[in-house]
Amino acid sequence: MSNLTPFIHQITQAQREQRQGHRGAVIWLTGLSASGKSTLSMAVEKQLFDAGMNAYVLDGDNLRHGLNSDLGFSAADRTENIRRVGELAALFAEAGQICITSFISPFRVDRASARKCMADGIFCEVYINASLAECESRDPKGIYRKARAGLIPEMTGINSPYEPPEAAELVINTAELSIAAASATLFDFVVQRTRGAM
Amino acid sequence: MSNLTPFIHQITQAQREQRQGHRGAVIWLTGLSASGKSTLSMAVEKQLFDAGMNAYVLDGDNLRHGLNSDLGFSAADRTENIRRVGELAALFAEAGQICITSFISPFRVDRASARKCMADGIFCEVYINASLAECESRDPKGIYRKARAGLIPEMTGINSPYEPPEAAELVINTAELSIAAASATLFDFVVQRTRGAM
Repeated sequence: MSNLTPFIHQITQAQREQRQGHRGAVIWLTGLSASGKSTLSMAVEKQLFDAGMNAYVLDGDNLRHGLNSDLGFSAADRTENIRRVGELAALFAEAGQICITSFISPFRVDRASARKCMADGIFCEVYINASLAECESRDPKGIYRKARAGLIPEMTGINSPYEPPEAAELVINTAELSIAAASATLFDFVVQRTRGAM
Repeated sequence: MSNLTPFIHQITQAQREQRQGHRGAVIWLTGLSASGKSTLSMAVEKQLFDAGMNAYVLDGDNLRHGLNSDLGFSAADRTENIRRVGELAALFAEAGQICITSFISPFRVDRASARKCMADGIFCEVYINASLAECESRDPKGIYRKARAGLIPEMTGINSPYEPPEAAELVINTAELSIAAASATLFDFVVQRTRGAM
């Protein structure tokens, strides 16, 4: 094996996409804690799988304990967390997957950086919109209650800002829609983006 | 959407694997620079794709400029580089992919950590074995020449150690085998690990 061939990826993203019948994409959910990101990401991952498509959710659950276990919740660490999610999601999309990311990702500049680290058209920003009052009334993990009690130093919406998207590809208002309607809206959007004409 | 459902991944690795007809895995290539890792990873990615399987190569090319662009080549940064590759590869395997990683990964402790960050049986260590003299005679990028000239401070094999695997799942001697024979050996191994009985 003396004659090493040049180092070239022989299988392109386009070949992967052609075989599986849909494009890769990054569906970037952003919104306050308890806005519904996790619920929707899981529901749509299942719907896409059932429709024969390849989808995979990246969230705090599979990243905070693994790849990003070295990061805390300071501003710098949050930015690095989101940077890595963006790079990772870009790789999944290149492998042909519909990568759904489910992170608060409160800062516009961080979301813009994630968008820029992948090819045009891959990144789809989806604003999961629910008011702070609505999210606080849900509070399924009790973290807003803890934050109000001063137990969480940098809680988005309470003592750290959330910057809503200014030009999201899709906005889903989870205070107005049922889970079924919200997930159907997201599913239709993803199918259009990954199977429709570009 | 007031009734948030609990946060549970609804599509399991097993479901993904059943649909695509093979398991996810991490095929971890390790060996000196110019030992043949890149050539073999690319060849086998194509062979697996042509066999209808989902495979994706992670290498310095798609990681050093993206996810790991904040890392240099110090000992600490090399360890962190390999840690992230391990975590990332584990996610790809969970998504059902056969993730082929192509990194020198010279230290046993780092490879052992990568093995530990995924479920038993996922990580397959493949030693791409060629002597330093052989690799140095190939030197397709001229880096050994540069290292001998003192231009590369921590070049594996020259002024930084390479620790060969002690119990690799597979050893491929690229000085003895042709590219075709070496890639066929690796392909057969991967098919056995991902389609054969466990």
